[in-house]
Amino acid sequence: MSDVLVRQDGPVLHLTLNRPARRNPLSLAMVLALREALAAAEADGNTRVVVLRGAGGHFCAGGDIADMAAARARAADDPDVVVRLSAAFGELCLAFARTPLATIGVLEGTVMGGGFGLACVVDVALAGESVDLRLSETSLGLPPAQIEPFLLERLGYGETKRLVVTGARIGADEALRLRLVHEVHADGMLDAALQRVLADILRCAPGALATSKALLARARLREPAQLIPEAAQAFSDAVLGDEGTEGTNAFLQKRPPRWAPP
Amino acid sequence: MSDVLVRQDGPVLHLTLNRPARRNPLSLAMVLALREALAAAEADGNTRVVVLRGAGGHFCAGGDIADMAAARARAADDPDVVVRLSAAFGELCLAFARTPLATIGVLEGTVMGGGFGLACVVDVALAGESVDLRLSETSLGLPPAQIEPFLLERLGYGETKRLVVTGARIGADEALRLRLVHEVHADGMLDAALQRVLADILRCAPGALATSKALLARARLREPAQLIPEAAQAFSDAVLGDEGTEGTNAFLQKRPPRWAPP
Amino acid sequence: MSDVLVRQDGPVLHLTLNRPARRNPLSLAMVLALREALAAAEADGNTRVVVLRGAGGHFCAGGDIADMAAARARAADDPDVVVRLSAAFGELCLAFARTPLATIGVLEGTVMGGGFGLACVVDVALAGESVDLRLSETSLGLPPAQIEPFLLERLGYGETKRLVVTGARIGADEALRLRLVHEVHADGMLDAALQRVLADILRCAPGALATSKALLARARLREPAQLIPEAAQAFSDAVLGDEGTEGTNAFLQKRPPRWAPP
Repeated sequence: MSDVLVRQDGPVLHLTLNRPARRNPLSLAMVLALREALAAAEADGNTRVVVLRGAGGHFCAGGDIADMAAARARAADDPDVVVRLSAAFGELCLAFARTPLATIGVLEGTVMGGGFGLACVVDVALAGESVDLRLSETSLGLPPAQIEPFLLERLGYGETKRLVVTGARIGADEALRLRLVHEVHADGMLDAALQRVLADILRCAPGALATSKALLARARLREPAQLIPEAAQAFSDAVLGDEGTEGTNAFLQKRPPRWAPP
Repeated sequence: MSDVLVRQDGPVLHLTLNRPARRNPLSLAMVLALREALAAAEADGNTRVVVLRGAGGHFCAGGDIADMAAARARAADDPDVVVRLSAAFGELCLAFARTPLATIGVLEGTVMGGGFGLACVVDVALAGESVDLRLSETSLGLPPAQIEPFLLERLGYGETKRLVVTGARIGADEALRLRLVHEVHADGMLDAALQRVLADILRCAPGALATSKALLARARLREPAQLIPEAAQAFSDAVLGDEGTEGTNAFLQKRPPRWAPP
Repeated sequence: MSDVLVRQDGPVLHLTLNRPARRNPLSLAMVLALREALAAAEADGNTRVVVLRGAGGHFCAGGDIADMAAARARAADDPDVVVRLSAAFGELCLAFARTPLATIGVLEGTVMGGGFGLACVVDVALAGESVDLRLSETSLGLPPAQIEPFLLERLGYGETKRLVVTGARIGADEALRLRLVHEVHADGMLDAALQRVLADILRCAPGALATSKALLARARLREPAQLIPEAAQAFSDAVLGDEGTEGTNAFLQKRPPRWAPP
């Protein structure tokens, strides 16, 4: 039984953090397994959506504090051990935040530390009413370093600053108000909500979706005027390409395009 | 009868998309007419506010899908035809997003594709309860390329990413919650709401308003420390200039300044 | 009796704008006193939180209009007098927005002009139900120049643009909806709310808090990929340093860390 369960269901890859006895804390092995699974999904030409969740009613308790104490002991011989651990987690967050695939997080129970960060890198965050989000790092004497760029992308500057400074603890209602999560459901209804979001996403063409995400990432730190030529080229490529031809023909012929569920 | 109706009412320019039988889809001619009307208003020394709306109970159905099919047919002879179309629309969005004039959108019924983008470039978005916003591009196999920078400015990164990935369909209540629109009213009350917003805007000095918008655009991608000198110069120019003198004198004399409605 | 009251309460510095008869307008002397008090607090090695409020039921009426008229009179002899005044206020806003200390604003009654800006630079904004926020500059013929970068950080681009263009007047409920303020309480309950926020903040390690704020400021205008190495180094420094050792040991030993209130 692995610490990350991987299940393919047609175009949907389900990744499940699976150390339920301890609310799914992240080990380095899990971080690497998640990156590898995402990279393989991006390369397989079949996967369109990645769903990330936790086993046993909790999403993720964040980094393993016992692992940190162990790393500290090893640092005398290997001073960069924590740098490497942290960077590996940062690379995972970045890979999720910028993947051309669509991503959905299903958040239940504890969502803490690094888990809070993973909640912020997925495209769509569905929460159960049980969700209990905590940005606990600063109370442990640590900065939530690798996840700050992604809290910023999800919540904006002011709200992220407030959460970091107060060591936030957030329930489902407040999370929805802050748009930290996009939908809240009774935990027992999360699978039904997930199916609806998957249906919405699968109606969108995978190439257009990937192009849109890439353009958005470029727009973040660029003047809008600077984006016009590349946006025009991307739009033209799509209109003249397979997906645009199929999508607009399907629209004019009042039928679903080939990528849409029947 | 033109596809863009232009009506001047003192300092207010009303632009109305006018292909009501088809819910006001945007043709290239309309895009160019809107840009020309905005540029003329910026130059006339009289216009202070531009109001953009659609005829017949709908705002704008976006790009014309039939036009795209036609452009595809022409692309064999003229490979850049779609690039030029897309760039022209991008230039229109940018011109609205960065105009020194104040802008208001009145959104009813269908607001789709490129129309969704126009809803995001105006300064104030008033919506009727009938509003039905759809980011439909990706379901047609196309990226919402030119409008992404402006969705980002209105909604922030995380929400824009979610909407692009799910091909969002949004009603009045959700649009207000996301601050995609700023006010929602019964459709029959939109004109009264527009008059109130116009009165608020006309109490603000046009030069100060233009300077404020320009500074904000510069602040977006700059460190605050870097802005201090130019903000100080802009503030000093205003205090020592005509508007600042009139505005502060009017305040001390407890009378409205000359630019305010009586 | 000074125009800025300064009171130290253990690790908490209380700064109170104190010209209550006129709703605490900001003079240059007050701007300089606030900067000096903040700089001293950053240097004293003891202060962890700065609380900013106004005396007499109002927060701050902004710049003093009479001062501006006086500056205009002096400008014939000293053309840069307004530039220097504005830059000094900009430096104050920046110092608050980027201080490594935690900051809380307690907002009651009038919050206008420059006061609106101060409300946007604190990490946590608590509002009384009496709060009446006004971005009045443009109606006086002036741009809210120095505060725009901080409205942008608190409210995002679209909402800031709307407020600037309409000369916004905002009550407690709308301020909370816009996340211009983070909590609203009956005015008589603000002190109790402040104690709760102080307790939350004091559970967070001061070094980790300062590092987190600095990383966030760097993340704002950088690609996430670029941040990974410095975030990893900052995290490693914390894990291997005093605070991280104490924080994780305290967690494993189920006791509060030394920086937390008993």
